[in-house]
Amino acid sequence: MTDHDTGTYATRAAALEPINESAEASARAHHDRLTKPRGSLGRLESLGIQLAAISGEDPPPIPTPAAVAVFAADHGVLAEGVTPWPQEVTAQMVANFVAGGAAINVLARQMGATVTVVDVGVATDLDALGIPDVPHLLRRRVRSGTDNLAAGAAMSIEHATAARDVGAAVATQLVEGGARALVTGDMGIGNTTASAAVIAVLTGQPAHKVTGRGTGIDDAMLARKTEVVAQAVARVPAGADAATVLAEVGGLEIAALAGFIVAGASHRVPVVVDGVIAGAGVLAAHADCPAVLPYVLAGHRSTEPGATAVLDHLGLEPVIDLGLRLGEGSGACLALGPLEAAARILREMATFESAGVSE
Amino acid sequence: MTDHDTGTYATRAAALEPINESAEASARAHHDRLTKPRGSLGRLESLGIQLAAISGEDPPPIPTPAAVAVFAADHGVLAEGVTPWPQEVTAQMVANFVAGGAAINVLARQMGATVTVVDVGVATDLDALGIPDVPHLLRRRVRSGTDNLAAGAAMSIEHATAARDVGAAVATQLVEGGARALVTGDMGIGNTTASAAVIAVLTGQPAHKVTGRGTGIDDAMLARKTEVVAQAVARVPAGADAATVLAEVGGLEIAALAGFIVAGASHRVPVVVDGVIAGAGVLAAHADCPAVLPYVLAGHRSTEPGATAVLDHLGLEPVIDLGLRLGEGSGACLALGPLEAAARILREMATFESAGVSE
Repeated sequence: MTDHDTGTYATRAAALEPINESAEASARAHHDRLTKPRGSLGRLESLGIQLAAISGEDPPPIPTPAAVAVFAADHGVLAEGVTPWPQEVTAQMVANFVAGGAAINVLARQMGATVTVVDVGVATDLDALGIPDVPHLLRRRVRSGTDNLAAGAAMSIEHATAARDVGAAVATQLVEGGARALVTGDMGIGNTTASAAVIAVLTGQPAHKVTGRGTGIDDAMLARKTEVVAQAVARVPAGADAATVLAEVGGLEIAALAGFIVAGASHRVPVVVDGVIAGAGVLAAHADCPAVLPYVLAGHRSTEPGATAVLDHLGLEPVIDLGLRLGEGSGACLALGPLEAAARILREMATFESAGVSE
Repeated sequence: MTDHDTGTYATRAAALEPINESAEASARAHHDRLTKPRGSLGRLESLGIQLAAISGEDPPPIPTPAAVAVFAADHGVLAEGVTPWPQEVTAQMVANFVAGGAAINVLARQMGATVTVVDVGVATDLDALGIPDVPHLLRRRVRSGTDNLAAGAAMSIEHATAARDVGAAVATQLVEGGARALVTGDMGIGNTTASAAVIAVLTGQPAHKVTGRGTGIDDAMLARKTEVVAQAVARVPAGADAATVLAEVGGLEIAALAGFIVAGASHRVPVVVDGVIAGAGVLAAHADCPAVLPYVLAGHRSTEPGATAVLDHLGLEPVIDLGLRLGEGSGACLALGPLEAAARILREMATFESAGVSE
């Protein structure tokens, strides 16, 4: 079986089940028997209870190894001058990911996680850059970058749903390969502009509240970027479905992330999401498939304002808050430590009874 | 050489050197050459720069393996009804630490860190509990618990300085045994009361601002605890030195932590401090030895109000903020992941030049 046979987005969305409330209740009661004051492990307790609800087991399985998927794509909106970085950096960073030299590679190695790079829509010829054919690079290009979302739809609905299928298939491939947690990663020069537009549409927040400095832009460029987002958002019909929003103002990696998140949840593994690009993907996943939410863990709070808009809109509490704004999955990867700890606490800690400690 | 010969607190304090500003500047410049937008790794960047300043090397060594020292002691102030937990729980938890069943054991195993338990002043006979003689239990009891700090000095200055020497010797023993980072841990029923008193004295904050619910007490008990802290603090002469403060209102584990922190810094390893008990120890270390501060990393923000008072007073920014209030070193242990990541980023990430990425 190739990963192309592992199920479309639609089949995975249909397979998505509610979390297991019985395992959740069991883990909650279990925590109160462990040798510590009740509630004193704070978020580690709620994370452990969530892992039980996701897996249906108390104690939950240890969520390792994790697999990071970095979805890479380009953006036609670059023509509007929304970032100082040239488009070829997307492909250059794909080469860096494949070679293992980027931040996400370093963090994933530390966490014992794999990194799979998915070209879902890069505009540059990867072969011309000498990027080798290796198993951790998946060539799934739906098209070479999007059109300029400031001038019209970023892509067709067919391309958006094809990208979503790519993401879903990657999630299934990684889980079938042994991943016990999925981590969202992303790369694409210009993708904070598309993400801001998706977030504005799906949260109802105005463009200036969700548009940020991305890799670090000046005031004039931020003003232009915000104007581009506002105009694009105004074009999206009220009540548009997720696929339409992704096609009009989204990006190929954002659509792929939406599929990846839904499919991961359908396999009952925790899906740890990164920053603002993943936030746009989560919103698109949730708009189509609300049952996905309890399977999602917000890895961190990115400094991008759109990321916080997503957290607030969905009621997600980030695990890590270290002022990161890199993307690639870096913040989510750092959350794997506390996530693993949450499972290990339920699996390994002594109870008052077993340890002979007065309660 | 036994650990008793590894140097007193005074010799370690005298050996403490300033951090290396040249390595710090080198790491800062190094970060700007790595394949990411400048500053986009947020706190991971400043942590890496701090590790370079501490070690004197850019890139800094990976701060593993880490060693957790859990200092255990009892508190005479229990007679005032400041906690619902009986005193014997301190020794029962020592047994739990030695057996590997407590939260700190679980977290340390995950992080590849050792746990050393130090009886610096437990009131219960450990042999009567059947606690075995093992290398990771250090029997360094200075006295069997403190006197009631509500009624008079908790201990003599000689006992406070002896406990500080114990902590210093443990730090040296662990570093000589191969630890590349130290983590503070603590156990002692009643120790949030003593910690609040030390924090009130050394930050100048009123008792009600620094006294918290500890393991979880009701309003009436909190009012009584706050009153005890306020009265004890009023007894400490203005301008008292650290040893006097520790003797009057402190605890044996708090004094030991102060010695551990100073000695760890003198060996140029990062010292990751936990919550409110460690916070009292850091204040006592800093009051005597201000140069210790850049070697200290605040592992997490405990929910105890005294912990935040310490962070604010010393200008420390916590790494983790997950609502923990357990102690034992649990929050600090979770910070080891980001700390290791900060070093690995500087050691392993590609530069724009090496990766051929446009800057």
